[in-house]
Amino acid sequence: MRKNLGSLPGVFPMPVLMVATYDENEKVDVMNVAWGNICGMDKIALNLAPERKTLKNIRLKNAFTVSLADEAHVKEADFLGTASGNVMSDKFERTGLHAVRSSRVDAPIIEEFPVTLECEVAEIRESFGEIKVIGIIVNVSADEKVLDENGKVSAGKLNAIMFDQFQNSYYTVGKKIADAWRVGAEFMKK
Amino acid sequence: MRKNLGSLPGVFPMPVLMVATYDENEKVDVMNVAWGNICGMDKIALNLAPERKTLKNIRLKNAFTVSLADEAHVKEADFLGTASGNVMSDKFERTGLHAVRSSRVDAPIIEEFPVTLECEVAEIRESFGEIKVIGIIVNVSADEKVLDENGKVSAGKLNAIMFDQFQNSYYTVGKKIADAWRVGAEFMKK
Repeated sequence: MRKNLGSLPGVFPMPVLMVATYDENEKVDVMNVAWGNICGMDKIALNLAPERKTLKNIRLKNAFTVSLADEAHVKEADFLGTASGNVMSDKFERTGLHAVRSSRVDAPIIEEFPVTLECEVAEIRESFGEIKVIGIIVNVSADEKVLDENGKVSAGKLNAIMFDQFQNSYYTVGKKIADAWRVGAEFMKK
Repeated sequence: MRKNLGSLPGVFPMPVLMVATYDENEKVDVMNVAWGNICGMDKIALNLAPERKTLKNIRLKNAFTVSLADEAHVKEADFLGTASGNVMSDKFERTGLHAVRSSRVDAPIIEEFPVTLECEVAEIRESFGEIKVIGIIVNVSADEKVLDENGKVSAGKLNAIMFDQFQNSYYTVGKKIADAWRVGAEFMKK
């Protein structure tokens, strides 16, 4: 039996994207974005409310980084999604996380997060009340500890978290169950 | 030690979105989209290659549905992401899945998937080689079995799968670890 729940932002899972920028004083700001994803082989789209400090910084520097939040830093990730850099000047410092400058783009890399996309701005536009930022992924850097023997990121080692907007909660990743482009092959032969 | 991996579509997790449409003969087509997410409280964005059958159908009907793929149907979901409705006329029928017409939009609901977003087209535009479809979420319908005692979708009951583009594989969801907007509260008090 199906129930109608009305209009809801009902996509699951959503990633927990930590978007890091510098302001005009080279001060680090980080926010938590669930409404983003890849939108091309070398592109990422983020949907941000117009008033975000992050958006001001992105316009200023034409650059940002996006890190994947992991289970060890769920508290920090959550805080960075609730506090505002517009009103809390020491927002990033409170977390105790550490930042280094990206060598590729004018934005900080948060050292504690294991995978980081270093991005230049490709486009910023208004879209139905949100500001859509599209970034060119110039480089992905990852901690060795999350790489497999072939040097690729292993989702099993990443311990990434995901956001559940149905109930406003965070989940861990389970187990790998199948190879894509293979597990459905039986239907090809029918 | 951080390693540079070059430019990669390195977001994890990505959802496994089953996008269902009718063609001009009311024939059901379903494809698997990983590059999509919510982009507003009542909006969803999908990034599609220009040649997709799904895109032709969306332009024709101004409607589509998006279902969340679950673990029980990982084979079907994978097949629907590898086969093309442009060249395989019985693509949907091969899966053995069942469709019913949405009462809200001119698009089919796949009965086996537990959560479905019923969408009208808000905008279709080219963006850096991909076609970005933005839909208005008119209604979300969900199987009773994935709802909690308050009538909300429970991610723990959903058994949704997610896509790992680093290694082209599917993962299950783990466990709930925290309430969002709460778990990071300790940093607010500092």
